[in-house]
Amino acid sequence: MKHGAGIYKMAKKLDCESSEIIDFSSNINSYNANITLTVTKEMLARYADSSYSDLKRVIAKKYEIKKKQMVLYNGATSAIFELIKSLKEKEIYLYAPLYGEYEKAAKLSDKNIHKINRFKNLHKIPKYDSTVVFVNPSTPDGKHYDLASLFKLWKQQNCTIILDESFLEFQNLKSLRNQINSYKKLYIIQSFTKFYACAGVRVGAIFSHKRNIKKLKTPLWNLSSFDVAYLTKKLQDTKFSNKSKTTHKKMKKELLELLKKSKLFSKIYKSDSNFILTKSQHAKKIFKHLYKNKILVRTCGSFDFLSDNYLRFAVKDTNSHKTLTKVLNELT
Amino acid sequence: MKHGAGIYKMAKKLDCESSEIIDFSSNINSYNANITLTVTKEMLARYADSSYSDLKRVIAKKYEIKKKQMVLYNGATSAIFELIKSLKEKEIYLYAPLYGEYEKAAKLSDKNIHKINRFKNLHKIPKYDSTVVFVNPSTPDGKHYDLASLFKLWKQQNCTIILDESFLEFQNLKSLRNQINSYKKLYIIQSFTKFYACAGVRVGAIFSHKRNIKKLKTPLWNLSSFDVAYLTKKLQDTKFSNKSKTTHKKMKKELLELLKKSKLFSKIYKSDSNFILTKSQHAKKIFKHLYKNKILVRTCGSFDFLSDNYLRFAVKDTNSHKTLTKVLNELT
Repeated sequence: MKHGAGIYKMAKKLDCESSEIIDFSSNINSYNANITLTVTKEMLARYADSSYSDLKRVIAKKYEIKKKQMVLYNGATSAIFELIKSLKEKEIYLYAPLYGEYEKAAKLSDKNIHKINRFKNLHKIPKYDSTVVFVNPSTPDGKHYDLASLFKLWKQQNCTIILDESFLEFQNLKSLRNQINSYKKLYIIQSFTKFYACAGVRVGAIFSHKRNIKKLKTPLWNLSSFDVAYLTKKLQDTKFSNKSKTTHKKMKKELLELLKKSKLFSKIYKSDSNFILTKSQHAKKIFKHLYKNKILVRTCGSFDFLSDNYLRFAVKDTNSHKTLTKVLNELT
Repeated sequence: MKHGAGIYKMAKKLDCESSEIIDFSSNINSYNANITLTVTKEMLARYADSSYSDLKRVIAKKYEIKKKQMVLYNGATSAIFELIKSLKEKEIYLYAPLYGEYEKAAKLSDKNIHKINRFKNLHKIPKYDSTVVFVNPSTPDGKHYDLASLFKLWKQQNCTIILDESFLEFQNLKSLRNQINSYKKLYIIQSFTKFYACAGVRVGAIFSHKRNIKKLKTPLWNLSSFDVAYLTKKLQDTKFSNKSKTTHKKMKKELLELLKKSKLFSKIYKSDSNFILTKSQHAKKIFKHLYKNKILVRTCGSFDFLSDNYLRFAVKDTNSHKTLTKVLNELT
């Protein structure tokens, strides 16, 4: 089941409102506040500054790069599809498991797809002149890798590197953005959806050497003015950012404890991201019981090298965790 | 100069705020009101229903078609690019002048581009099995064509027909949407930007036979939730729609009168849209004088079969028209 989209089908099936469902399948920052965007007549009627200078300035400051080192797309998915389409390298190595989008994009661009099992063969050598894709922190397990030795290997093999750092901000983890200038074949994918708690806001970025950015063309005015306004505001909101991080830490601990205490899982993965991967022989039964009780979790059968024995739980809030505890307890 | 984007460059050049400029180059409905969108935490954090059912239902009702007969893109430009890319026909006929987007899209998809001069050779016969593109009402002149005989010709030639009806709603003009079922090679492009006064809202539609729609794939969640919320609300706002039409009628008459009275133009085109095309040997001088006075109009040198002697004025409000009158009078 796709993350995020499942609640609408589920609501139909259970004959309830989608708002009644607790969505542990969606890995969006669960700390946020309602906001009011006042949209003036002028803002609506005018075409946006098509280079999105203000938003870019804010991103540049926040991520410590230059405006010329980024390009903005209508969501990270668009960024991934456009980037992979633009690469001439035919061989692509996906460090799996990872999101399905990369494989879809690679298929659509007729690449020869190879998969490297992160859990077993992390240091397998990709072909010379190939493309490698690594999500860090990874998904669905949430592990953050120290990429120093892999990065060295990739450079040796003259690889084009696509590094997805969309989950980096929940903890203060090390980014490889500072390598953009020294290694010209490095591309960093940045979704703002996850940390900035805005699934419906369609803005994603590619950070890379300015020479690469110049070549990556986007359609004129590809971003919504509303989205640009929201994100420009949100990226500068350090109170939100700080509160998100402390809340996240506390809530992840809470989720981890409750999963452990339930004794339903044979393995619980250590996560550096805002979701926790579990393994259980009874995963199907757990999923069904939760589902019946209007709780949606992510089954992992569609991920490479995993199976339906794996379930992923997103970090939510105390109330959601309490309900989860209660419903899981009914199984023990 | 591109419509809409020019005011930012202009503001820089004139060292003023972009809000000080009266933008007669942008053909957006000038009647609108400020709106406040209250965005809840839940709305932000949740992925949208990826099929956009609610918005589609509203569009279906408004445009008297079925939900299965439409696909939504992140703006009409995206719709145009994706549609032309998807067509296997190699030959494409553009009824020119028309927006630049169609030619750009055709070039990007390696089509053989032919241009038919609407003013001189309207009934020229396109090749069998080719694609034809017609914007109705047209741009930059705003003429609405009765397409009956052309439609017959196109069908005879087994053409794929792309009909852009984005400016149809300002007057109660006849659409060819009702032909979607009987002629399966008809595609209608609908931008919501113009009439619904929302340049920054990135939603555009293709209407076609449900078999075609099935083949036109879009990326998941390609629309902004804000945009979807705005447009769903706006499309149902009949008060806005009615007031827009009456205001438009009055304001277009006002603009036409002032242009006539100025006696600066050797030709003023009859328009069925929300802009008026003019011709003058002194167009460059007029443009410069207006520019200096913080008024931007659309020069038409980039349109096929036109030249810099042509200027296009968008229909605005009484205040803007008064300023325009005053500044034009300085030239006579």
